[in-house]
Amino acid sequence: MVGHLLARGFRVALHTRTRDKAEALVARGATWADSPRAAADGADVVVSMVGLPDEVRAVMFGDDGLFAALRPGAIVVDMGTTPPSLAQEIDAAARARGAHAVDAPVSGGDVGAREARLSIMAGGDTAIVAALEPIWSTVGKSWVHQGPAGSGQHTKMVNQILIATLMIGVCEALLYGARAGLDLPRVLQAVSSGAAGSWSLTNYGPRIMKGDFEPGFFVEHFIKDMGIALDEARRMRLSLPGLALAEQLYVAVQAQGYGKKGIQALELALASISGLPWPPPPVSAPSGR
Amino acid sequence: MVGHLLARGFRVALHTRTRDKAEALVARGATWADSPRAAADGADVVVSMVGLPDEVRAVMFGDDGLFAALRPGAIVVDMGTTPPSLAQEIDAAARARGAHAVDAPVSGGDVGAREARLSIMAGGDTAIVAALEPIWSTVGKSWVHQGPAGSGQHTKMVNQILIATLMIGVCEALLYGARAGLDLPRVLQAVSSGAAGSWSLTNYGPRIMKGDFEPGFFVEHFIKDMGIALDEARRMRLSLPGLALAEQLYVAVQAQGYGKKGIQALELALASISGLPWPPPPVSAPSGR
Repeated sequence: MVGHLLARGFRVALHTRTRDKAEALVARGATWADSPRAAADGADVVVSMVGLPDEVRAVMFGDDGLFAALRPGAIVVDMGTTPPSLAQEIDAAARARGAHAVDAPVSGGDVGAREARLSIMAGGDTAIVAALEPIWSTVGKSWVHQGPAGSGQHTKMVNQILIATLMIGVCEALLYGARAGLDLPRVLQAVSSGAAGSWSLTNYGPRIMKGDFEPGFFVEHFIKDMGIALDEARRMRLSLPGLALAEQLYVAVQAQGYGKKGIQALELALASISGLPWPPPPVSAPSGR
Repeated sequence: MVGHLLARGFRVALHTRTRDKAEALVARGATWADSPRAAADGADVVVSMVGLPDEVRAVMFGDDGLFAALRPGAIVVDMGTTPPSLAQEIDAAARARGAHAVDAPVSGGDVGAREARLSIMAGGDTAIVAALEPIWSTVGKSWVHQGPAGSGQHTKMVNQILIATLMIGVCEALLYGARAGLDLPRVLQAVSSGAAGSWSLTNYGPRIMKGDFEPGFFVEHFIKDMGIALDEARRMRLSLPGLALAEQLYVAVQAQGYGKKGIQALELALASISGLPWPPPPVSAPSGR
């Protein structure tokens, strides 16, 4: 994302916890900053992209956090996936010093970031979200303003709730097909384009069949996101049994040692519940078309 | 389906439980048969399309069932969604009298049947399935031979397992979004084309938002299909927690009086769990794009 901003001509001051990761960008013209506070010093827009709520809190509100240097009129943008209630807290803190906040989590993954094809879900004041269009169009292929502070994060939670149950279905369906002795590529050919079809089936199905569980999207990050969604839902007095089941199944995936695998590793945990190996033994394909 | 067969020039003898439904087809050239047995008399291919396993058994093996008139060399085709183990039983009965059986359930729904765009999942002997190509191409847009007897039904179960968990995700995600005060059309715009996207979200999402729960695909038929899948999974010693949750939630949908609504009526049962109305109160949409 920083690379795309540099290529478009933005001046970027950059801080990461692991400095090595920044070297190539510094070589391309980014300025190294020793802390989030240093990165925010004099900036018009400060973008944060870290994972866990406590980390976001430290980056925002710590002694060396970006709020320590945030000037009035500046815009703080949190592009990580973090709690909607935290987005509202950041918004309140920004307003208190005459600055602005936007929550703008993304979907599209590593590939979307590399190819500047992220989908951006933005929450915040309309004019402020619109003013950031040059950034959105540099790192993303689409952006939608969802409403006030927190709405971007809530929209990301909708996205993650959809993926959570989708993955259960994809993994259970493949497990059933394998157990029934079906030729899975043929099954996918029959079901992928109709009412049972989804991005997850088309993209994860073939990888799961081959036993390819490399990330993609990490199991442990997904568990963090589902935890946020469950916390928010509980706070809103909302019961989501499907999401709760997905979260528990992913806790099992992590417990079995697959926390740093991709979310398609759910297949391994589901197969293990029934004592089955994965990938399944090969099936001789019937002829036909 | 019969209308398309007549239009293509097939000679069709036809039996249904409700004769009125057949009148228009008889007017177009189909011959009325007083029983499945009469419909099968002298036929090269006998197609059954009924719902419940006991009904299929009666149509096949009853005193007036089609097996009573099935001639050697004829092909029995079950295009309903019925248990894979029943397909194997029909196959064995057909072989015992020198005939053939094919299980060929479909996806695509009422619309697919009317528009001859069904997707056909066929199980049976390769040569026999291939010999039926004139029928497949008349009523469907695609067909895939999945393997021996029962494989078509097993593939349909894969399809239904995918839809079951998809619907939980779509309904929980919309419920979360509504509860969080989001503008749902905007949310769908943001999440439909990425990793969270699916046919179900694109097609059912807008109907659910409007409170349109007309079928489509009936809740009570879906419960029947999920029951078959759970029975078969149990028989194969396969635990499918997501499918089991979906089936239980749909039992609740039916218990609340929505058995003859479309499967998107799951939203009503999920909202009721948290004491929420559906559709949700309107939200004023933010500007932006």
